Amino acid sequence: MIVQGKHYRTLWFEGTKLHLINQLLLPWEFSVVTSDHWETTAEAIKTMVVRGAGAIGAAAGFAMAQAALAAPANTYRDYLYRAAEAIRSTRPTAYNLFYAVNKVLDAAVVGAKTAVEEAQRLADENLDDGLRIGQQGLPLIKPDMKILTHCNAGWLAFVDWGTALAPVYQASRNGLNPFVWAGETRPRGQGARLTAWELFQEGINHTVIADNAVASLMAAGQVDLVITGADRIAMNGDTANKTGTLDRAILAKHYQIPFYVAAPLSTFDPDCFSGDNIPIEYRSGAEVTHQSGPDAENILHTVAVTNPGSPVVNPSFDVTPARLISGIITPQEIINPCREEIEKLIKPGLKG
Amino acid sequence: MIVQGKHYRTLWFEGTKLHLINQLLLPWEFSVVTSDHWETTAEAIKTMVVRGAGAIGAAAGFAMAQAALAAPANTYRDYLYRAAEAIRSTRPTAYNLFYAVNKVLDAAVVGAKTAVEEAQRLADENLDDGLRIGQQGLPLIKPDMKILTHCNAGWLAFVDWGTALAPVYQASRNGLNPFVWAGETRPRGQGARLTAWELFQEGINHTVIADNAVASLMAAGQVDLVITGADRIAMNGDTANKTGTLDRAILAKHYQIPFYVAAPLSTFDPDCFSGDNIPIEYRSGAEVTHQSGPDAENILHTVAVTNPGSPVVNPSFDVTPARLISGIITPQEIINPCREEIEKLIKPGLKG
Repeated sequence: MIVQGKHYRTLWFEGTKLHLINQLLLPWEFSVVTSDHWETTAEAIKTMVVRGAGAIGAAAGFAMAQAALAAPANTYRDYLYRAAEAIRSTRPTAYNLFYAVNKVLDAAVVGAKTAVEEAQRLADENLDDGLRIGQQGLPLIKPDMKILTHCNAGWLAFVDWGTALAPVYQASRNGLNPFVWAGETRPRGQGARLTAWELFQEGINHTVIADNAVASLMAAGQVDLVITGADRIAMNGDTANKTGTLDRAILAKHYQIPFYVAAPLSTFDPDCFSGDNIPIEYRSGAEVTHQSGPDAENILHTVAVTNPGSPVVNPSFDVTPARLISGIITPQEIINPCREEIEKLIKPGLKG
Repeated sequence: MIVQGKHYRTLWFEGTKLHLINQLLLPWEFSVVTSDHWETTAEAIKTMVVRGAGAIGAAAGFAMAQAALAAPANTYRDYLYRAAEAIRSTRPTAYNLFYAVNKVLDAAVVGAKTAVEEAQRLADENLDDGLRIGQQGLPLIKPDMKILTHCNAGWLAFVDWGTALAPVYQASRNGLNPFVWAGETRPRGQGARLTAWELFQEGINHTVIADNAVASLMAAGQVDLVITGADRIAMNGDTANKTGTLDRAILAKHYQIPFYVAAPLSTFDPDCFSGDNIPIEYRSGAEVTHQSGPDAENILHTVAVTNPGSPVVNPSFDVTPARLISGIITPQEIINPCREEIEKLIKPGLKG
């Protein structure tokens, strides 16, 4: 992606150092933080300095590589297993995290250099996946289409390109003039802050809406297509993604609007039979009760937005059943969200 | 309603003065503002110092009465018509506003004293409507039910009691232990700020959620009943209410959860054939792009929460088609949302 005329990845590795675009400061401030230890990287995942299924996966892979680089020779394996456990415990829902930790852990058993190479290979694959998802999804987008997305599944959510927005970026570069509705995505506001910022940087027409305006836009014929990302896809096609995705899938079904999920193979969980088995992260109620941002003088404040003393629950993800999904855009092809097609796609990956 | 041990109406009239609970400062600060001129009262409606269909109606009625009190004898009628036009232009969607302006304008033709009496009668009727809606809706609520509402349709939205929450207040006072999910209701956050505050004051169990969490709660069987208010109901039962109401109606239909609307007769628009004829208010994009609230030191700030430069649209209401509504809880009875039953209920009101 291009920011202020310069090409960036969401994260990149040099020597022992992982550089990450600090997503907590966007869209107000573009800055890059550096972590040279797996514990700092794990903390960056936990606090959402880096977020989005693919970016979490890539960061977790590099965290594992950093653990291999830091592990004392005499307790190498124990150290690695402890680090893997700690990295896995940062976020529970995005499968890409577990996929990357396991892959790099396997490589680390051979040696730290192999671990770094594997983490880099996963990051490159992650970028390549985004590019190919964009190409696979491109035929779904007709000229001047109005596309609704949810949360941020653009390049910030992956090493580059992203998933849900990847076909939109391809469509834009192919002159199809796509338009994107970016729902705010409360409680964290990734749509209003990150998706809107990405689209603004790319010069793609878009408009931010409150999450509550989705049905009325659909009723008015203002949404031609819905594409979201995914944090984990079960083998039957049930898909966990940011809370509110299920709402949009049901609304799309009601208005007969195609609803697609975009994800690479690392998002599919081969051990997950159905959506019932996907663990859902409940995050702090403070994400609902408070909002942060700059005032008119550009000074950051955190302000309360709910009645003090009222209880809050904050499920961070929901599960959309396969029957509400028109198709899954993968780097290989667009598949139907059913066990047969998913297994055919995933099984070779399992053997690799 | 009781606040800090004292009984309050949302607004009340004395002499030439209208006293209004300032809803812009809630839940952080409970204060009452006073307006002794119709122009200030109109401004209070416009800026949402007073909000909620019924409270807007009652305030508009008193504004008309204030206009009658202020009108110079030699231009009495002209002055009244100009005031009526200005008051009508404050908010376009809530029908209660037009209903009250017309009623008090008719009375004002007789004289200012008659106008004040009519405005007071409407306010008393408004309170009584809330009480009777509560009694009519009570049989829908079984012990320990979990009820989802949207926006604020409790006592702050009317002179007292409210509409959607009126049956909940009755259920609570009858020992049925109701529980309420209060969706945040972005962009203005009336659910998180006002509904949660009201329920907190009343000691009713409730939990605030992001608007995006509705479908996952329904999928998990955590919602037994949905009740919302209404800003305008067309003669075929199509209902305009706060943006996001349509979303919840579709989700409730999907999960086969009863979806009720609660409203008095003054919300029904006899000139409105269907939802297509209801004007929808588009409010400032600043409601989406900025959030206000107190910081940890209780100092109020307004902070930006969306990407600067990204366009925003902010439809404040949506229209739920009658076929998605299980029933309308009126002060008289629970009716089916169809032309026949609505006309039977409204026609005598038209003659009155």
